[in-house]
Amino acid sequence: MEETIRTLARINAKHFSAQLDTVRLRTGTLTERIKIDHPEAAAVVPFLDRERILMVRQWRYAVGQETLEIPAGKVDPQEDAEVCAYRELKEETGHSASRMFPIFRYYPAIGYSNELIRIYAAAGLVRVSEREDTVEISRVEVIPISEVQDLILKGVIQDGKTVIGISLFLARQKSGGIPEGFLG
Amino acid sequence: MEETIRTLARINAKHFSAQLDTVRLRTGTLTERIKIDHPEAAAVVPFLDRERILMVRQWRYAVGQETLEIPAGKVDPQEDAEVCAYRELKEETGHSASRMFPIFRYYPAIGYSNELIRIYAAAGLVRVSEREDTVEISRVEVIPISEVQDLILKGVIQDGKTVIGISLFLARQKSGGIPEGFLG
Repeated sequence: MEETIRTLARINAKHFSAQLDTVRLRTGTLTERIKIDHPEAAAVVPFLDRERILMVRQWRYAVGQETLEIPAGKVDPQEDAEVCAYRELKEETGHSASRMFPIFRYYPAIGYSNELIRIYAAAGLVRVSEREDTVEISRVEVIPISEVQDLILKGVIQDGKTVIGISLFLARQKSGGIPEGFLG
Repeated sequence: MEETIRTLARINAKHFSAQLDTVRLRTGTLTERIKIDHPEAAAVVPFLDRERILMVRQWRYAVGQETLEIPAGKVDPQEDAEVCAYRELKEETGHSASRMFPIFRYYPAIGYSNELIRIYAAAGLVRVSEREDTVEISRVEVIPISEVQDLILKGVIQDGKTVIGISLFLARQKSGGIPEGFLG
């Protein structure tokens, strides 16, 4: 294992922080590591019907481009991740869902961030409101899941959680891991 | 788009940095965002034969646990990503490869990091040396790719690049996207 000796510097944003630590490696050598301390996140593959999902277009500051992704966001303090998935779906697309099924949980950037993303499939969607989040989301799109798979293989979709959400949903579906009737 | 107004703070590690920026959103509102400025990375799914791959066990400071992953690392300045993939494979497993094939490129943490990971499949492996990197890698393991898929679906493997590397290799193989004879 690696042991924290001390934190040399730290910067805080509203919902997470980055810090530079002096760390003792298992060989005894000291080194410095940046670590992002991030809350858990929830992401949703929202099925409108058996064939089509909702996706969102948004500007991503860190990569300087607009991207096409599944809805997602940070879990609030004391919030359950599944509750967060329902909330983010509603905020970003204006849709409620009647059911969620956990697809996968993973570390997106294990080298420098403790963020854990839990991905769900959602079904039983109903349009309940205008979108609330018009600051970050520029457009909601309806896309056949087969087309999303093509967009991934062609390299158009380059967002990790979207790739994992779609790929693992399809793998679970193929192996019988999605409950009968879940998609309706 | 979102415009940088100014950088409020910055911390530097040896190979990358984290900064806190004041940003103008597309609505005109100002907010603060943490951004990791990270070099590109390369990861490798190294096939020993048609059925088995090499994986590495290593301690991950950010998540405080030992993980099972495909070999990977940061691309050096002026280094080609594919050259980096050969180098990391050799450093972490002691194996050279006779060929690489690009599987996918993606952003692992698009919300706060510009890191781009390029994943390759490697074949024609030959053991050429003891591992060089005994600081970070604790063990090299040989695992059937079907078992890796099970470890992913069971949630034992939780590293994003490993999940994407295996899933997209299998998807490309199924769709005829891996050159005939690549695996030997």
